[in-house]
Amino acid sequence: MFDTDRKFWGWGVSSFPFPQPLLDRVRALLGARFGVAPPAARPAPELAAIRIPAPAIVVPAQFADIVTAERYHRAAHTYGKAFRDVVRALDGDFECAPDLVAYPRDEDDVARLLRWAGATGVAVIPFGGGSSVVGGVEADRETRGRFAGVLSLDLCRLDRVLAVDRVSRCARVQGGTYGPALEAQLKPHGYTLRHFPQSFEFSTVGGWIATRAGGHYATLYTHIDDFVESVRMVTPAGVLETRRLPGNGAGPQEDRLVLGSEGAFGVITEAWLRVQDTPRCRAGGTVSFATFEQGAAACRALAQSGLFPANARLIERDEAVFMGAGDGSHHILVLGFESALLPQDDKLSAALAICEASGGKARKAAAGGNAGGDDRASASDDSADQWKESFLRAPYLRDEIVRMGYVCETFETCTTWANFPALDAAVRAAAQSALQEHCGAGLVTCRFTHLYPDGPAPYYTIIAPSRPGRQLAQWDAIKDAVSRALIEQGGTITHHHAVGKDHRPYYLMQNAPLSLAMLEAAKRAVDPQGIMNPGTLLPPA
Amino acid sequence: MFDTDRKFWGWGVSSFPFPQPLLDRVRALLGARFGVAPPAARPAPELAAIRIPAPAIVVPAQFADIVTAERYHRAAHTYGKAFRDVVRALDGDFECAPDLVAYPRDEDDVARLLRWAGATGVAVIPFGGGSSVVGGVEADRETRGRFAGVLSLDLCRLDRVLAVDRVSRCARVQGGTYGPALEAQLKPHGYTLRHFPQSFEFSTVGGWIATRAGGHYATLYTHIDDFVESVRMVTPAGVLETRRLPGNGAGPQEDRLVLGSEGAFGVITEAWLRVQDTPRCRAGGTVSFATFEQGAAACRALAQSGLFPANARLIERDEAVFMGAGDGSHHILVLGFESALLPQDDKLSAALAICEASGGKARKAAAGGNAGGDDRASASDDSADQWKESFLRAPYLRDEIVRMGYVCETFETCTTWANFPALDAAVRAAAQSALQEHCGAGLVTCRFTHLYPDGPAPYYTIIAPSRPGRQLAQWDAIKDAVSRALIEQGGTITHHHAVGKDHRPYYLMQNAPLSLAMLEAAKRAVDPQGIMNPGTLLPPA
Repeated sequence: MFDTDRKFWGWGVSSFPFPQPLLDRVRALLGARFGVAPPAARPAPELAAIRIPAPAIVVPAQFADIVTAERYHRAAHTYGKAFRDVVRALDGDFECAPDLVAYPRDEDDVARLLRWAGATGVAVIPFGGGSSVVGGVEADRETRGRFAGVLSLDLCRLDRVLAVDRVSRCARVQGGTYGPALEAQLKPHGYTLRHFPQSFEFSTVGGWIATRAGGHYATLYTHIDDFVESVRMVTPAGVLETRRLPGNGAGPQEDRLVLGSEGAFGVITEAWLRVQDTPRCRAGGTVSFATFEQGAAACRALAQSGLFPANARLIERDEAVFMGAGDGSHHILVLGFESALLPQDDKLSAALAICEASGGKARKAAAGGNAGGDDRASASDDSADQWKESFLRAPYLRDEIVRMGYVCETFETCTTWANFPALDAAVRAAAQSALQEHCGAGLVTCRFTHLYPDGPAPYYTIIAPSRPGRQLAQWDAIKDAVSRALIEQGGTITHHHAVGKDHRPYYLMQNAPLSLAMLEAAKRAVDPQGIMNPGTLLPPA
Repeated sequence: MFDTDRKFWGWGVSSFPFPQPLLDRVRALLGARFGVAPPAARPAPELAAIRIPAPAIVVPAQFADIVTAERYHRAAHTYGKAFRDVVRALDGDFECAPDLVAYPRDEDDVARLLRWAGATGVAVIPFGGGSSVVGGVEADRETRGRFAGVLSLDLCRLDRVLAVDRVSRCARVQGGTYGPALEAQLKPHGYTLRHFPQSFEFSTVGGWIATRAGGHYATLYTHIDDFVESVRMVTPAGVLETRRLPGNGAGPQEDRLVLGSEGAFGVITEAWLRVQDTPRCRAGGTVSFATFEQGAAACRALAQSGLFPANARLIERDEAVFMGAGDGSHHILVLGFESALLPQDDKLSAALAICEASGGKARKAAAGGNAGGDDRASASDDSADQWKESFLRAPYLRDEIVRMGYVCETFETCTTWANFPALDAAVRAAAQSALQEHCGAGLVTCRFTHLYPDGPAPYYTIIAPSRPGRQLAQWDAIKDAVSRALIEQGGTITHHHAVGKDHRPYYLMQNAPLSLAMLEAAKRAVDPQGIMNPGTLLPPA
């Protein structure tokens, strides 16, 4: 079952020891930035005090051992981890809680639950780690009104690596396996997946596949897609399993109907993943740039060089400060190469030379080069280390910032190198204008999370002063303004956060109407009643 | 219009000067192999003498300038270039010729033609270079019987590079652009796509995308998929165009509904392709192995090394002899690295060391290393050069072998490294048994065309003595036996040749029934009348 240390209202576990000095520093930075000291943090909600309706349906007798209607489990499955999820939770608003939460033990349980849901008109929301920041695991009012009830289907018991194929270097993994559990089970074999999304600690293999999650690699293996060899998905119409094929060229790529399906087609119960040997050779460094344009030019040259750095994150100066990396005088590119086999120093040198040609000031990491077998960071100078640590702690920090009453959000997209300057200008203008109008002030920063030969994946963070009671309406207005700018400028509404319910309107603008029609038809083929995660990805049937 | 030097019955152009000494050598090899001197080659068919029915429909007045019912054009669009296509053409059998052939000048013509076809119940077969070896451009009897007529829609006039985006290193290319025309138009910009399928000279960008063609790169960029940034397709329901997005993560990947659609959803009129800088640094070599198992082990280690060789083709000893590379004593791995930027010698050395650890005997190419800007072969020692030349000439040679009355065919698949030995044994057993039963003898050889971390793409060639009149029935039996073995052993019916009509039965066995149902539903969404390439990829609606 779901570990009750898990916060039902925000990120991670209640017992996480969030460092008070960091909190104090962020409070001071925010206070200085906006000229007003942040208010005291709102208290975490009490489970007994939240508003949560009685379940509309009762636990079916045949599922008594795997389905619950208990308050904690319903509350903890009401939302993902988006800004607005945390705000609503702090407000005590759990009006759209699922009626029931299921913890299937195996795929057969999943199939039985789908059959029951189809027969009784119950909507099913597949739930991995619940880390969606796009409304991907929530039953909104629109959903609730169309169904007899809502079942959140939590895959956390399907948490095992079932087989390891050492010859082909692949592992068969159950969909509910969390990131750390996956790595722990691979480690005795000398393997690692090395797919490290920011949600790593509290997200699952099935969730990664359903949302096409973005991981640690800045090039080549940017999405989980690149590690998926085959998939297995239970749909209302039965099981869909693809063959283990390294480079199948038969027809439209079969597993692409599963990757990115966001629970709208079925429940991903298993996948064969291409794992990696543990890296033993690393080389890393940082490059500082006086202008973001110089950094972007270096990233473009790197992306088109064929060097394929494992890590290459360009962080705007204001954001670096917030993350505790750098003093704010320069934009920073964190660069890392890794290999299980070959020293990476030459590649790093070539990459740093490329960066210097674009005006960067390069610095090799102290522990770079041909490191031992331990799991040291790929770039271990101070800036890089600090940034990595803060990367994984960021979702906790985000909760704290929400509790202080700020509005904050991230927008991630991708675009061509040629189009980036125009998109960047438009997104910043739309964001600043919306922040000014709705919050009176605000900070917009950018980083590149992933690089492609034809363009970057820019990731924007906004933060603005607000106060409890106004946060949601302000967020709605800002979110809409920036999202429209992304779509109008030729970007995508998501590079790796997924569509969910929050991005659906913009996804519908972005995609070709005919490809949406094809997807809707494909959904009807496996989910004729439309019970699977209704309203997520595609409009309710 | 279609160049009338193009053979209407086989590969390439009539004026190709096929080298007589090579032909003599192959005749001698085949004669020695099967103990009987090959008969004199059958004459090429005369256009005037072939059996081709009168067109069932007349050229519509509104299309008089772009549609023809002339005999040559109908004959040249009756078949692709499969073994059985050439045999039927040599037999003078053009019974299933399209009634009309269209040469649209632009996308608007394409859309008008589709509207007319929908209104009059005419089936439309998109035609790129016509190089299909899987029945992808043919109207079989089943098709003919269901429609008022059949239109072959040849895209050859949409043959331009419309734009080059130097910043993002991309080119907007029309679907009917042939390989050489594409490279010629990119060259002044210093670019190349470097997608070199064996069909390169007589295949098109749109055809590559429709069939997910495999190119020159043995790793990383194995299919055209890896170069496609966005696509534009005209369907009976309208135009589907995807955005230019380097790493879009929104929902199921949109362009994957177009890649591999084999003309069954619509006509690919344009694509933005990721092009490359012309390689200036190359390093190549060959490795010989005493056993194919050693070579396979070396390929596996290479594929899992992260070195990503541009070329890595392991050729079985008997096949190397046929291709004029090697003396038949050893299996040969042709290895090449290339880069526009960085010397590749270190990578080559590392790769050769890996191969030697698997028992190979390595030899660096004389012109390897940091070569100049000319277009030298990636591995330029004798074996490699000879093999490359014969690679591009192979389709011409295949025609000659068919004319001598042999049965020959290729089977290409992919599988995991763990499964390769079992699949290989089963495919060879099925092929040998079928060749023995139906032809009394036969040769089965294998090469690896592409390598993945989790498995190889083995490519089998069979050749057996036969005689005119028996070739088709024998081919049918052998094709079925080997294809079934591929499917039973967990392989795919195609790594890069596509499905067409020939592979459709096995594709239907291989794919999950639910994913086929999703594809069929998706097709109905854009082609409700089922006029697009009926029977190719999916069963006729």
